[in-house]
Order: sequence, then structure tokens, then C-alpha cells
Amino acid sequence: MFAKETYMERRSKLKKSVGEGLLLFLGNDECGSNYADNTYAFRQDSTFLYFFGLPYAGLCAVIDIDNDREIIFGDELTIDAIVWMGTQPTLKEKSEAAGIREVLPYKELENYLKAAQQKKQQIHYLPTYRAEHQIKLLAWLGVLPGAERPSVPFIMAVVNQRIYKSEEEIAEIEKACTVTAEMHLAAMRTVRPGIKESVVSAAVEEAAFRHNYGLSFPTIATINGQTLHNHDHSHLIKSGDMLLLDAGAETEMGYAGDMSSTMPADRKFTPRQKAVYDVQVAGHEAAVAALRPGIPFVDVYELTCKVIMQGMKDLGFAKGNVDDAVAAGACAMFMPHGLGHMMGLDVHDMENLGEVYVGYNGKPKSTQFGRKSLRLARELEPGFVFTIEPGIYFIPELIDLWKSEHKFAEFLNYDKLEQYKDFGGIRNEEDYLITADGARRMGPRIPIHTEEVEAEHC
Amino acid sequence: MFAKETYMERRSKLKKSVGEGLLLFLGNDECGSNYADNTYAFRQDSTFLYFFGLPYAGLCAVIDIDNDREIIFGDELTIDAIVWMGTQPTLKEKSEAAGIREVLPYKELENYLKAAQQKKQQIHYLPTYRAEHQIKLLAWLGVLPGAERPSVPFIMAVVNQRIYKSEEEIAEIEKACTVTAEMHLAAMRTVRPGIKESVVSAAVEEAAFRHNYGLSFPTIATINGQTLHNHDHSHLIKSGDMLLLDAGAETEMGYAGDMSSTMPADRKFTPRQKAVYDVQVAGHEAAVAALRPGIPFVDVYELTCKVIMQGMKDLGFAKGNVDDAVAAGACAMFMPHGLGHMMGLDVHDMENLGEVYVGYNGKPKSTQFGRKSLRLARELEPGFVFTIEPGIYFIPELIDLWKSEHKFAEFLNYDKLEQYKDFGGIRNEEDYLITADGARRMGPRIPIHTEEVEAEHC
Repeated sequence: MFAKETYMERRSKLKKSVGEGLLLFLGNDECGSNYADNTYAFRQDSTFLYFFGLPYAGLCAVIDIDNDREIIFGDELTIDAIVWMGTQPTLKEKSEAAGIREVLPYKELENYLKAAQQKKQQIHYLPTYRAEHQIKLLAWLGVLPGAERPSVPFIMAVVNQRIYKSEEEIAEIEKACTVTAEMHLAAMRTVRPGIKESVVSAAVEEAAFRHNYGLSFPTIATINGQTLHNHDHSHLIKSGDMLLLDAGAETEMGYAGDMSSTMPADRKFTPRQKAVYDVQVAGHEAAVAALRPGIPFVDVYELTCKVIMQGMKDLGFAKGNVDDAVAAGACAMFMPHGLGHMMGLDVHDMENLGEVYVGYNGKPKSTQFGRKSLRLARELEPGFVFTIEPGIYFIPELIDLWKSEHKFAEFLNYDKLEQYKDFGGIRNEEDYLITADGARRMGPRIPIHTEEVEAEHC
Repeated sequence: MFAKETYMERRSKLKKSVGEGLLLFLGNDECGSNYADNTYAFRQDSTFLYFFGLPYAGLCAVIDIDNDREIIFGDELTIDAIVWMGTQPTLKEKSEAAGIREVLPYKELENYLKAAQQKKQQIHYLPTYRAEHQIKLLAWLGVLPGAERPSVPFIMAVVNQRIYKSEEEIAEIEKACTVTAEMHLAAMRTVRPGIKESVVSAAVEEAAFRHNYGLSFPTIATINGQTLHNHDHSHLIKSGDMLLLDAGAETEMGYAGDMSSTMPADRKFTPRQKAVYDVQVAGHEAAVAALRPGIPFVDVYELTCKVIMQGMKDLGFAKGNVDDAVAAGACAMFMPHGLGHMMGLDVHDMENLGEVYVGYNGKPKSTQFGRKSLRLARELEPGFVFTIEPGIYFIPELIDLWKSEHKFAEFLNYDKLEQYKDFGGIRNEEDYLITADGARRMGPRIPIHTEEVEAEHC
């Protein structure tokens, strides 16, 4: 945890920002995988962590703005639990470390909320993302699952604080990125033909776990990089394959790192691989060079798309006017996802609060295939931390679909694309902080150019 | 998955066993950790796996005994999802691999169940262990969270099938135990003074993940082995410490291994450690030697307690009549937990169905401290797979508590116990199958005797 003053200041600011009512913070509970006591690794809700710092299951909190009270609801351990779990600070002591002096038994929360409802206080809560949250809102507020009405003023106030990373948060993210870089080096030193993808992902995760860090998201380590959501690690790596790794560490305080890299199974990229890889790197470096306060991230995205489209045209995959092709959405053949996302206590920071508030400052999103997957579009400001992760993929299903529809036939060379259906995908990804006058990389630089990647290969 | 005949035979037997009504199987969904799409590793419900084999999120199943229908409810992937997730077999094809011919859209399930309710069919469901299950029962059957009434005939029928492991299941558990043994060897080769516990647990988990296996439960790797529920890996290992490891692998099909070992941080156990360690091993080996069909597991537990109590008496920690001390419950000072538990598709097999059905064959449990933690008591039968895991711990909080109450003062030597409050804890654990005429160890033998453990030390 940070010093208690950090949490006190954050709450003070939040209270002023929302102004009135009662703010309800649903802490997370343990979640069983195949029975109740076989729990997944506990993860506290990030907004709860941000304002209260307490990484323990079974807590909720209230900031009653109208009555100027800040309360943690939770139960002290029984003697039986202490015998099994060892001596711990009391919940009262833990709460004081967050600057909270009022602690009430968990069962009191229901009465507290019902009394607030009777007094016609406005009860603000955030969007739910676990079934347990829905059950609590049903029990305490009578809200049926699916009928939740999260508070927009509460969401906006939280976003407007969490989006600007403080110095102490930046130091935490730097730690996450340092370990994240170690994870990628571990992969480059492990990958080779004849082993399963799981041998690589195991080495990657070991590099995080040895620091007592967690994973900020499930590891992608695949020879089928063209399949964007791919958590399968069961394939045998063959000579000629490329392995796409997207993996990140989470510090003990919950801050995320997130990087991607693409490496050849053999000691060298083939010329065919290197040609496409270099286009991805050109797009990546153009994006990084453009980062500065005030530039809309959507402009960085458009710029990157143009660099990639030009490079793919030079290789014969695309044709026609590059600007027109990008505007029409043809670049989504190669990069159907966005350019990056906010990062902090969540790897997709505040994703549960709504992309339109976090990434778009309340403005509407494009509905075009490709562009609609852009998670971040707003003007960049000092204190923003986010990823840069363009990619180039040859997705057989997408090639087949668009070819059958003659889609973008003026911009895409399907004959050439057909020859690359076995190619896979390439993505490199780094994390950046916007500073007063530019941007700086978070964590050490990982190998990006083909010769750098090859030099790490075991 | 096994061959479809396996699942068809299991379902056929289940239908005969319950006899009438409608059996509702709640498959598990994805569960987000800090936002909806940042999901924990998906784990299908074990009973769903046992009868339908399909390890995919978003499915439920019905066996409508009265109308002789077996239906999987779930949705086919959209074209968008295929582009992002790659080509997969259809749900219809997946279901056919489990011998199921009827597949209906997920949204049809609610109507199916409401029609069954109108026809006064009895709807059987199992105990819930995730909030998502409760929300489904609320939406589909109008059952309020907390007011669930699981079907005892359904529970008993499932327990009476899953408890006897088939040859193909035994082969899967053998695979899990083989990898579990590798995890323990990895720890013995990693542990040393000056590293964090997390370095050991990371090496242990790497040994499972490299095979594309999961963990059957959260790893315990701690120098505070006396704290039974200890998932903290943050401590620095010091010279003179012992590390207690309790860890197991889960195969890709979901079968579990579960072993424990205790190793010195230094190359050798100290004489003080070895003396207590040898008592634990004596208890362990006495338990293993007693295993055979027909013996009540509670008798194996009593026997083990006596061996441990005698050993602790020989070392001066206990006094008086050993049989009386064990009967009174004094052995719980050293071993406050049970001797073992069933193992299969869950590491605590079928724990969600109720210990009294699984481990006690419906008979009541002891309420005595220590004995009440015995998860398995019933007569052992061929096909049962379970753990043997006695332990000896010096729990400072328990020593203080009982000493202050003068509890078992006739059996325990508190002056000597006081000197061991810094000792920690020792547990060794193996997995066994009851055969027609005895028992056999599952997986390879891991080092148990002190000299074997020391020989593995790097």
C-alpha cells in the first residue's frame, strides 16, 4: 500500500467531484473454480484498491458524502481462522493504514444502505462485472440482475482521477514493466523448434512469479498469432514458425505491465517473415515518434495505419491510394484491432467503467470494422500511461470472407494474400507515459528489430 | 475427452439411478478478475465434465429423464468470433463427441425449464458454488440466492458414480501425479537460503505449466508451514528454515494430483528437524501400510494419530497414555487436520456435493477439533483414489490458546512445546488407489525420508 495520505487525498477529491449522495464500493470476494474453497488467485477490485488500498476479500466500503462518513464494512477474523491462517493485523488496523477510522461488521452494510434509501439519499455504484456484485445489489438495493443502473457521475469522477498517474503510481508501473521485459527475454531464450508453446509460456510466467508478481492478463504464447484471442498453448513449435507473445506482469500492489513480441522458432527470421516484420516495426516506431501531449490518439492510430498500409503496398499486398484505403477501413485486413489502451491498476485500465468514458472522453466511437476496436482515441495528456501495439496478421477466415465479398478489391491484392494464409501474425508492444513535453517508455526496451530479437535467441 | 461411449454410459447409469425428473447441469462461465474480459483460467464444472466432457464456457445441459432427452444448451460462434478466435468445430460437432445429438440455443433453456415447471416435473440441480449459478437459478427457476434446494437423490447418484474411478480415469490421474512429482523435485532442486519463497513456487508451477497442465489448487510454498492455509510466497528463505510445499498438477482433461513435501533450506535437515520429521514419516508409512479394501478410513486416521502421538511422546512433547490422548483429541495440537481426501476431477473430489455424502457415506461427522477436519472416513473400496497426508505442526497461536486453558495438560508438555514455537510445520503427502486386494501409489515415489530429500537438494 501507499501511505495513508494518498488514499485520503484521493477520497477527498472524489467526494468534492461527485458532490452528494452515498458512494458504494463493492470489494471483490474469493471465487471458486470447481468448488467454493478451490479459489482463483484473489484480485481486489481496482477502484476499491485505488481509494482504499486494502487487498483483502470480503470487504465493501461506503463514502457517505451527505453525512461525511467513510466506512469499511467487513469482519474481524475468528480465533479458529487465526489458528489456520496465522496472526494478522485486525481489520481496524488494516483500515487505519488507509486512513479509515470507521469499521463496521459486514452485515451492517445492508441496514446502512436501506436506511439511506429510506432517507432518499442517492446511492451511487459502478458497473458490475462479477455475478457476486449482482447478487449484492439484489440483496441490498433490490436491483434485479441485468437491471443495474450504474452512476455516471461516479464513473466520470473515478475515471478523471485514475486516468492521471501519480509519481508513485508511475514507479509501480515501471516495476511491472521491468518484470514484463524479463518475461519477454525469457521467451526469446526458450523458444525453439520441437517444444510445445506451453514450455515457452511456462518460462514466461516463471519470470513473473519468481518476483511474487502475478500476471496482468492471461498469457498469449502462440504460433497462431493471427488468431487474436488465443490462449491455447498446446501446439508443437515447428521450424519456420514464429511465436507471438503477449504477456505482462502485475505488481503485488496490482499495477500492470503489458508487452508483446514476436520471435522466430529458428535462430533467424526468414526473409519472407522479416519483410512483413519490418513493416510492423515501421508502424510501431512511427506511432512512438508521434506521442506528445495534446495529440489525439486516434490521429496516432491513423498515422500508424498509413505507415503499415504503405509498407504492405510496397510488398504487394495492397494497392491504390494509401490514404483512401485507410479511410475506407481496408487496413483492418492486416490490423483488425486498435493501437493501444490505457494501463494502470487494470491492464485495460478501467475497462469495467466503460470505454467511451475512459478512451473517448464521452465522445462516440466509430462502428467501422477495425476502427471500432480502438480502445483509446482521446487527446493525450501528461500522466496517461498506455500501450502501443500495432500488428500485422494474415487471418485466413477474414481473407476468405472479404475475398468472397470482393470487399476493398481496389485496395487489397487477394492473389498475394492467398499465398500468406499460413504466415501467422506479428505484434510488438511497448508501454508509454505522456510527460510534460513528450513521452517516455515504461520499463527497459525489449528487443524489437529483427537482429535484436535474433541476438537474444538461445 | 474420452470416447463418447464413456459419457453415454455414465449418463445412462445416472438416469437409471435418479429414476425420474429433469436433471439440470450448470456448466461454468468465464469469470473476470478485475473486469469482465480479463478472465481467470476457465474451469468447467467437474460434474458437467464427468457426464458431458465439454470443457467450454457458456454451456448448460439437461437430462430430461421423463421425456428421454439429453440436450446441450449453448450458442454457435458468430462469424466475428471465428475471425478473432479461429475456426473451431461447431457446438453440434463438439456435442456429438459426447454422444449428444440435441443442441439448442442457450436462450431456449429458460423456456424449457419453465415448461417443465408447468408440467410439474421435478427439476433436480446440484449445490451451487459460484454466484453465477445462483443468478441462473434465480432467472430460470425463481430460486432466490441462498434459498437453493439441491437435490439429494441427484447428489447421491453423482457421488456413487464419480467415487469409483475407471481404468481410463486412473490413467489420467496417474499422468497428473507424474507431473505433480516433477513439481516437487523442482522445488527440492531450487530451494536454498537467500531466495524468496516465490522463486520456489515459480519453479514448481513452471514444471506443471510446461506440460500445458494447470494447477489442481493454489500452491502452498512456505517457510511458515505451521500456518495451514498459507498462500503467501513473499518471505525470504533463511538458513535453518524448512519449506513446506503442497502442490499439484491438473491434466488438460481436469484430473488432479496432490502431493506435499518438506525440505530444508540448507543441504541438510538439522537434528532437531530430523527428529520431528521422522515421526511424521512414521505416521505416514503406518497409514500407507494399513490401506486395503474394507478398512474404514477413520481407522487409518486413528492409527496414524497414535503413531504420531507415540513419536511425539518419545521426543518429550507428549505424555500419558497414547490411546487416551488420541481419543480425547490431544493429537490435534500437532495435526489439527484430517488424514486425506478423495481425489479425481476435483483435488478435493466432489467437495461441492457435500463432505457427508462423499467422505462419510451419509453418516454424521465428529464435531471434535481436529477430528471434525477429517474429510474422509468411510470404508475404502476398490477404485477410490485419495491422499495420505499426515502432518506435524507447531502452531504458536494454538499452543498459547490451549496452554492458557490448561487443555490436555495431562497429555501435552507445554514447556517443551514453548521451545518449538519457531519450528514451523512438516507434511508429506502421496496419492493412493485402492485395488482389489490392497492399494497402490499413484505416480512415481517422491523423496520422503530425510536422506532422500537431501539427495535431491541442489
